[in-house]
Amino acid sequence: MKTLIYAQSGGPTAVINASASGVISQAQKYGFDKILCANFGVDGIIAENFYDVTNLDKTSLELLSRTPSSAFGSCRHKLTNADQNDSEYRKIASVISKYNVTCLILNGGNDSMHTAKQLANYFVKTNLHCAVVGVPKTVDNDLIGTDFCPGYGSACKYIADTIQNIALDTSSYAKGRVTICEVMGRDTGWLTASASLANVNGNGPDLIYLPEAHFDKQTFIEQVQNVYQSKKRCLVAMAEGIGCGKVASLDGFAHAQLGGVAYELADFVKNTLGYSTRAIELSLPQRASGQDLSQTDVNCAFACGQQAVTLANNGTTGVMVTVIRTKDGFDYGQIALDEVATKVKYLPQEYFTDCNVTQKFVDYALPLIQGEVAQTYVNGIAQYFDLNKLTKYKP
Amino acid sequence: MKTLIYAQSGGPTAVINASASGVISQAQKYGFDKILCANFGVDGIIAENFYDVTNLDKTSLELLSRTPSSAFGSCRHKLTNADQNDSEYRKIASVISKYNVTCLILNGGNDSMHTAKQLANYFVKTNLHCAVVGVPKTVDNDLIGTDFCPGYGSACKYIADTIQNIALDTSSYAKGRVTICEVMGRDTGWLTASASLANVNGNGPDLIYLPEAHFDKQTFIEQVQNVYQSKKRCLVAMAEGIGCGKVASLDGFAHAQLGGVAYELADFVKNTLGYSTRAIELSLPQRASGQDLSQTDVNCAFACGQQAVTLANNGTTGVMVTVIRTKDGFDYGQIALDEVATKVKYLPQEYFTDCNVTQKFVDYALPLIQGEVAQTYVNGIAQYFDLNKLTKYKP
Repeated sequence: MKTLIYAQSGGPTAVINASASGVISQAQKYGFDKILCANFGVDGIIAENFYDVTNLDKTSLELLSRTPSSAFGSCRHKLTNADQNDSEYRKIASVISKYNVTCLILNGGNDSMHTAKQLANYFVKTNLHCAVVGVPKTVDNDLIGTDFCPGYGSACKYIADTIQNIALDTSSYAKGRVTICEVMGRDTGWLTASASLANVNGNGPDLIYLPEAHFDKQTFIEQVQNVYQSKKRCLVAMAEGIGCGKVASLDGFAHAQLGGVAYELADFVKNTLGYSTRAIELSLPQRASGQDLSQTDVNCAFACGQQAVTLANNGTTGVMVTVIRTKDGFDYGQIALDEVATKVKYLPQEYFTDCNVTQKFVDYALPLIQGEVAQTYVNGIAQYFDLNKLTKYKP
Repeated sequence: MKTLIYAQSGGPTAVINASASGVISQAQKYGFDKILCANFGVDGIIAENFYDVTNLDKTSLELLSRTPSSAFGSCRHKLTNADQNDSEYRKIASVISKYNVTCLILNGGNDSMHTAKQLANYFVKTNLHCAVVGVPKTVDNDLIGTDFCPGYGSACKYIADTIQNIALDTSSYAKGRVTICEVMGRDTGWLTASASLANVNGNGPDLIYLPEAHFDKQTFIEQVQNVYQSKKRCLVAMAEGIGCGKVASLDGFAHAQLGGVAYELADFVKNTLGYSTRAIELSLPQRASGQDLSQTDVNCAFACGQQAVTLANNGTTGVMVTVIRTKDGFDYGQIALDEVATKVKYLPQEYFTDCNVTQKFVDYALPLIQGEVAQTYVNGIAQYFDLNKLTKYKP
């Protein structure tokens, strides 16, 4: 009797469930006696709150692979340092022993990889034979060691298509506005940069501002004015992280209540230049829309899930699966969790200027948005995998 | 030699170009010598700024029919009363005579139907033999005399799917937030009500507030609290028109700068109940997304365009095309512009309660979101009709 546990962690993405699908189908292939998905991540492991997916059928697995958000529930549970207080570790270890878990797959971003690392180290230290492998997931694309993070590709595709829709809308009048679109990304500009992909059709933003670049309000105003004077409109993509206390001239932003920089800067443009403005926050749908999935992203997410099970089943522990770009597509490798946890990958300098991205960024990102995924609609509404149709596991 | 002119007016929708496609293909069928699309609506007629689409090919017409926003450009030009100053009327009449225009098709909402009415009356009065027919278009769905307004169906589908995506995202943690989604609609709640269609899958909002209903802040807080206490989360769909000076207890909203009621009420909930909150403004994509078109809406928009040409070509003037619901689908009729112009259709009382919609609304709206439209993607980005590939008309 051997068991595999899979848990989702951190913020949802549009393809984390594709990784779940890859994990489950690969575990089925390897003949695990029991495959359990924790409900609400590590919290579900501690509470012994599981869904039994050992015999989940192919149709459900296919539907799961194109269902946005975290189908099994997520959490932001941070484990304390085991040296200081190991009570949670002991509880998790007891669950691992009780269910005879040989593989634990954690699917998440930076913080989740830190948790995976802590557990992997604790299991080794306590001679518990359970392999811990991380599956990368974050729309932020800020994990090191992997070509990209599954979730990022679909977010890019959604953002680029949405920016194009907004560009078409704002160009329908002879005299347009200054439209400032706020894109997710507090520390890194990966998502905001993807707005540039709408330029495939010439419908991208005129100006793009990333947290990695120096931002100066006066220069910004001049850049907006230059575009507006020649085009009678100006479309701006702005990372939410612009002015998060990093840039002195931008203090006073009221992120928490007011939705952030787009509103603040739209007001600033209006008051300074007198132009009509509009602020648009792309908000949650950019990370969890089911209407604009990238098939490439879904495929990579699924394959990362498979690879995690292959590694863990072979006894490899303390690693995260990585995506490797090849001439023909993507391959999959591994990196030690020690190297990944809590580190952040910023855009390299050659990917951006002070108010736009470079062709090098486009060359990097464009392959990630290739291919579309047709959803199933019933009664006009997209149908997704429904956790409520599963029953909770009772040992 | 006979000419047809088509002009788009008012805010963009996802299917106004399907109406354009219907107008053009029907005019081609009737053998018009010249088919001209005004660039930027009535402004384009006055400036004699036209695109010649007489021979626009079938592939382009098909692509146009699924291209969001106003492809030929729109305007918000309001004509003065002809009795006071008829200079613009005389200019338009001279263009009509110069190009031998026998049919003028105006595609728009309330204000545009008023313009159509003014021109139709002026042409009759001055013995100018040019039929003026209006094609309904508005996501707001507030034109009277028609079962629905093309544009509304696709907006409903986008809103319902987006609300479902948000519902899945916000339910991924054991303890959720109060999420307030702000939907377009200053005076009427048609769009906000459509959020309820996500309930087809049980993923709709817990609470829905429309401008037509009485809104009381204290009752709202109690309703949010009740939902939150039982579900540990609460999803609210809120019309932007709530509190637009109509409701005394809601004055102090800062719509212009801050994106409106959602942010204000999220703050109010946070300060009153201490819950974590998030405000989401669905913004422009709800009226002009190409990623979630309703095939029913596209078909009706196209047919309305065809019907307008049929009516105008038969010499009927001063009418707007109407959509009539039948047992099997939709049929098309007409209504005098005098009856339509500047009037507003509100949700009937039996469609809503103080904090939700009724089954009668769902029965009304669900048929409008049926069917999906597959877009063409090149290099990962949706491809649309590109006006820049047409040349301007030179008489």
